Amino acid sequence: MGVLTRYAALISYDGSAFHGFQRQRNLLTVQEAMEDALSILNKKTVKVVGAGRTDSGVHALGQVVSFDMFWPHGPDTLRKALEANLPSAIGVFEVVSVDKDFDARRSALWRKYAYFVWKGNYRLPHLDRYLWRNGKPWDVNKAKAFLSMMKGHHDFSAFCRKADRPEDARRTIIDTELENIGHMIKVTITGRSFLTNMVRIIVGTMDEVATGRKSLSEIELLLKNGSREEAGPTAPANALFLWEVKYDPSPWTKGGYRLCWDWM
Amino acid sequence: MGVLTRYAALISYDGSAFHGFQRQRNLLTVQEAMEDALSILNKKTVKVVGAGRTDSGVHALGQVVSFDMFWPHGPDTLRKALEANLPSAIGVFEVVSVDKDFDARRSALWRKYAYFVWKGNYRLPHLDRYLWRNGKPWDVNKAKAFLSMMKGHHDFSAFCRKADRPEDARRTIIDTELENIGHMIKVTITGRSFLTNMVRIIVGTMDEVATGRKSLSEIELLLKNGSREEAGPTAPANALFLWEVKYDPSPWTKGGYRLCWDWM
Repeated sequence: MGVLTRYAALISYDGSAFHGFQRQRNLLTVQEAMEDALSILNKKTVKVVGAGRTDSGVHALGQVVSFDMFWPHGPDTLRKALEANLPSAIGVFEVVSVDKDFDARRSALWRKYAYFVWKGNYRLPHLDRYLWRNGKPWDVNKAKAFLSMMKGHHDFSAFCRKADRPEDARRTIIDTELENIGHMIKVTITGRSFLTNMVRIIVGTMDEVATGRKSLSEIELLLKNGSREEAGPTAPANALFLWEVKYDPSPWTKGGYRLCWDWM
Repeated sequence: MGVLTRYAALISYDGSAFHGFQRQRNLLTVQEAMEDALSILNKKTVKVVGAGRTDSGVHALGQVVSFDMFWPHGPDTLRKALEANLPSAIGVFEVVSVDKDFDARRSALWRKYAYFVWKGNYRLPHLDRYLWRNGKPWDVNKAKAFLSMMKGHHDFSAFCRKADRPEDARRTIIDTELENIGHMIKVTITGRSFLTNMVRIIVGTMDEVATGRKSLSEIELLLKNGSREEAGPTAPANALFLWEVKYDPSPWTKGGYRLCWDWM
């Protein structure tokens, strides 16, 4: 049996294979896949806590889960055994043992999401599944000004899926970034926590601003007293990645891993 | 109707969707997909010539095809119409009109192939389909020495699928390269022309050399009088890309495009 130990795992997944992270009846989710694989190894049910609830179709490069289990063979062996029991759409970068008070969700200082917009007029067959093919010409300066306005503490009611809107929809965006590499635009949004669909509605609204269909002063109002109808559409799920989750101290020993796409 | 013009197209594709480039009865190939799409636009059968015959499952970033057709609306419009008529596993980067004597296969000066070997002990779910997951530790210096021996004019009989071995199996490898980025190894092989499976058998044999199962002196003999059985196995198709085809002068006006994967 050994001792019940708390572990944290750094995982990545191709979201197109799952109905989101959170367990749902009769639909394959990342949480279920993780719990099933761990329960086999533990010979007893294991529950996992995820750092971020990615929507159906959303990918992760740096999702974090924590869980308790009996495992006498050390975290490296657990990583290997876990990956071997998971579908190939999930990879496990590292497993470490952590303090009893570590909680993948509550201990997280911030979450960083990345969104990829492809502006080329031609297809990229190898990466198509990870991009929003949006050929509309963007005023990148307007997009950047829009992202700057998102920074800080605001009422993000307009940027939340209506059915999931909480009583208090105020959230803090710590940082935003827009990188433009050739025809590719990578948008990064870092925040303590996010509302349902928040990043995708921000990107969908940014598209309206960058194409001139919405003005920056409309956005200013949206951040005060806006409703979902006044924001832009929800951008596609398949171009969104949960990129990184921050803890202090970092539980990882192997250093970060990063995926970079670069066009020229 | 207009004038019958010769065109060249720079295309990329995800090889997992096709049974190779060359037309085959009852199996979907890239050539068939291209000819079907062009024939619809031409309202008459179009035949395409490809620069390289990629095997089943092999990808292309810079495949080139040439063909003759009637199209009064200019090459940019042809690119767009062609891409719209192709399955999403094929992208068309550029279409240009070329001289009557341009032939995608015969006019090519050299072809460059890239092969991706993943040495990490963890999975990369987003790129898994484009890598050879080969966790065996490699002596990279031995791999580089092996690649250097491949350079030049040799009898590559041992590096050709047996059923397709031609009378004269001498070929010239112009250049080889090995890049090591973190746990990723990218092998690039440039040659005037290649035998069936040649790059994949070279990589499969390199694996035996880099893991110490074959010596460099055995390779020296293989390049003189070798038979297929004495070389290594054929490495998987899904990690091989037809990367670039060289013409002088280059028919392209938009400049090259490149896909880069970078881990740290």
